[in-house]
Amino acid sequence: MSDDDQELGITESKSHNTGEWYAEVVQKAGLADYGPEGMSGFIVTRPRAYAVWERLQGFLDAKFKDTGVQNAYFPLFIPESYLEREKDIVEGFDPEVAWVTEAGNQELEERLAVRPTSESIITPYISQWVRSHRDLPLRVNQWCSVVRWEATETKPFFRTKEFLWQEGHTAHATAEGAWEETMTRLDQYASVYEDLLAMPVLKGQKPDHDTFPGAETTTTVEALMPDGKSVQAGTSHHLGQSFAEAFDITFSDEDEEERLAHTTSWGLSWRALGALIMTHSDEQGLVLPPGVAPEQVVVVPIWQEDTKDDVLAYAEGVADDLDDAGIRVELDDRDERNPGFKFNEHELNGVPLRIEIGPHEVEDDELTLVHRPDGESVVEGRDGVVETVRDHFDEVYAKLYAAAEETLDGEVREADDRADILGTLGQHGGYVTAPWCGDEECEEPIKEPMAAEIVMVPFEDDDPLVDGDGDETCAICDADAERTAYFAKSY
Amino acid sequence: MSDDDQELGITESKSHNTGEWYAEVVQKAGLADYGPEGMSGFIVTRPRAYAVWERLQGFLDAKFKDTGVQNAYFPLFIPESYLEREKDIVEGFDPEVAWVTEAGNQELEERLAVRPTSESIITPYISQWVRSHRDLPLRVNQWCSVVRWEATETKPFFRTKEFLWQEGHTAHATAEGAWEETMTRLDQYASVYEDLLAMPVLKGQKPDHDTFPGAETTTTVEALMPDGKSVQAGTSHHLGQSFAEAFDITFSDEDEEERLAHTTSWGLSWRALGALIMTHSDEQGLVLPPGVAPEQVVVVPIWQEDTKDDVLAYAEGVADDLDDAGIRVELDDRDERNPGFKFNEHELNGVPLRIEIGPHEVEDDELTLVHRPDGESVVEGRDGVVETVRDHFDEVYAKLYAAAEETLDGEVREADDRADILGTLGQHGGYVTAPWCGDEECEEPIKEPMAAEIVMVPFEDDDPLVDGDGDETCAICDADAERTAYFAKSY
Repeated sequence: MSDDDQELGITESKSHNTGEWYAEVVQKAGLADYGPEGMSGFIVTRPRAYAVWERLQGFLDAKFKDTGVQNAYFPLFIPESYLEREKDIVEGFDPEVAWVTEAGNQELEERLAVRPTSESIITPYISQWVRSHRDLPLRVNQWCSVVRWEATETKPFFRTKEFLWQEGHTAHATAEGAWEETMTRLDQYASVYEDLLAMPVLKGQKPDHDTFPGAETTTTVEALMPDGKSVQAGTSHHLGQSFAEAFDITFSDEDEEERLAHTTSWGLSWRALGALIMTHSDEQGLVLPPGVAPEQVVVVPIWQEDTKDDVLAYAEGVADDLDDAGIRVELDDRDERNPGFKFNEHELNGVPLRIEIGPHEVEDDELTLVHRPDGESVVEGRDGVVETVRDHFDEVYAKLYAAAEETLDGEVREADDRADILGTLGQHGGYVTAPWCGDEECEEPIKEPMAAEIVMVPFEDDDPLVDGDGDETCAICDADAERTAYFAKSY
Repeated sequence: MSDDDQELGITESKSHNTGEWYAEVVQKAGLADYGPEGMSGFIVTRPRAYAVWERLQGFLDAKFKDTGVQNAYFPLFIPESYLEREKDIVEGFDPEVAWVTEAGNQELEERLAVRPTSESIITPYISQWVRSHRDLPLRVNQWCSVVRWEATETKPFFRTKEFLWQEGHTAHATAEGAWEETMTRLDQYASVYEDLLAMPVLKGQKPDHDTFPGAETTTTVEALMPDGKSVQAGTSHHLGQSFAEAFDITFSDEDEEERLAHTTSWGLSWRALGALIMTHSDEQGLVLPPGVAPEQVVVVPIWQEDTKDDVLAYAEGVADDLDDAGIRVELDDRDERNPGFKFNEHELNGVPLRIEIGPHEVEDDELTLVHRPDGESVVEGRDGVVETVRDHFDEVYAKLYAAAEETLDGEVREADDRADILGTLGQHGGYVTAPWCGDEECEEPIKEPMAAEIVMVPFEDDDPLVDGDGDETCAICDADAERTAYFAKSY
């Protein structure tokens, strides 16, 4: 094994050392580098990862625009006094804020927060823009970065002091309108995971004691990671009237009566990239569904001196056909690398489909297609290569989704008392469901010993315990169970 | 005139009070708001302006990707010690830097600069990524915001403390490669203005004493504004080897020799939006070329009670046809507004083409199309409306370009001594060209009394004075003229 080959190998085990394995994939597949000295907690997002983020952006942004959202851009900084106008926000974020105190060679009179989230600067503008019921609903979104100075260990895309995200902010005439908006965005987030990233997710709401600062309800999509932990993969908040009241969003209704608006906010961050990388990748490296892969298919010609011209010409023709059809294809005709090295490299980099072309393929007018990640190899005819490749993209997506779904289905377990919850979580990880009275105190006996928490509660309509017959009691206390709680460790 | 009508009118004169007129268009067309109290110099970019920025991004980003550029994302903050590694950068930007000094409830050990530009954080990573000549050229770009704490008065999109831009950074094996890159990006910037924004620009280089800190050559596209000032509309820097040396970008060449790379950087900001708004807009409001207009065409049905159903059905059919063809069309069928109000509003908002549909149009199977900005009205047949509308987009673009070109052509004047330069600038504004020895001292006698400077020098190949016969002497001193200088006031 040459130095080069060694460099391509992933040495950590996904199942035994998930964290180390993840860090190695991120680094060796060229997804991210750590920030400079003195800036722990920051990362550099390299082109291969950024390209995936751009495709996710394109997918989600199109959905936003189809459903009435307009993009805008608000200042990076928020004056301290603005942050303080919404006391829940300032309490929620104060310990994590980075402050600009000097600029232009002067001390500033007022500290400026680098935005940790933008409710407190966006809402006052919404208040200016809304006058009449005709201005509602009003929906703005921005794609930007935010800074939250968390002290915990850096995990690229999962936990960083600066992260890329989108934050949407809307105002509505009625509570129903705001609730509908909240759910529309949550469904769009679920679609990003399921339809684009080939990852099934659970949809529900955070327990009341764990909502976003100032929110009435925080809804969430949760994704299961291979180490049995849950990732909060996108949240959509029904803010009720608390922000409208703090920032005075009023409008005149159809009867010229002055009324207070209802608002929402919702965000999805590059944590989606982290969850994607962790879910599908393996010990050969990165695995990506075709919809987001920067290179969807690589054509690798395999020749000897006497067959080189024919093989290369054939391979070029195949690559050209795919390129013309808008498929992201790379022809790897490097002289200085052998086919085995190329296979390893493209597997490491997460190219979903490989086309191998040697003298036999040329002679028989065929192609050999190899799927990532399972290595399934299929021989197909050269005719209709565009259609064929698209079909195989669908197959790769379906395989990835099915594997993730099977894992998730096996990792939701029921329990009905404290010992059972703790034992099941300790033995298996994943989600443990249990009847719950709704009281934060009944989370403590699980959280304290196990660092697991209630990551989600199904929506009322999906939860048989809501308006049930009262037969079930809380797994922790003796009170009636109001809801089904999903306990899990989480990122 | 109702209150509403008054609100739509632009009251300032473009020719007499260009600055006030510009501020009024920006505000009334809903392009930007000023930042919150305590944050003068910041603006909020509203959806109509942001949508134009997105189209500009799409246009330029596609060109970047077609020519080997990959997008990435680097941290928002730069440790002070990194900034200091490139002394020219730190000297150039230090007075304008905003510093984060506290975060997570603690004083930081080292101040972090909010990036004013990212050479000093990106170049060290490029240094890690480049090992062999096979890694070159290496090209990364990021779309982000930067902060420069300038004390001058805020002018939305022209001068703000935070602005959106892209910054590209590349490394090359040879000086020629870096120079070619510099010019490729400058040409792409010129194309943004000429092909997308319908604005002719001048291409050239900054005088040596006005290059970017650390650069060997700064190339620029300059655009003429209606008040006779020049805008630096995009710059592309040949950085030579100064950054490669400071940050150690070396590579092994084909003979395994260690060599120092050559680098470039290039940026275009939302100042392009400012220049666009100022160039084409008028006293009815915003004017946009169809390529960037958020709404390209508005269909306004004009009915009486007895014709309403027919007119509306016909108008809807037209709007649907356009929408199906991917044209950004709005059907303005509001009941509560009369056609005159609608015309004014869409003119204010810069919709390039209006289609008026009344009973006559329905009867004759026709459409009345009205161009923004000149109000030219043309009757066309209903058949082939998609093709017709596209042709009219081309006409509107051509009109805008021709008008801007005519203005620019008339605003370049020659002068050959100091009095002539000052007199011509004083009387007309615009550009005054004069033979120049190349010495910074010969800019002073113009700069000091007039606040005009050498905004551009044509490239060597375009300048007859380079390698000329030495007959011409500098307009200020008696030395031989080396180059033609373009004097102008500038933003």
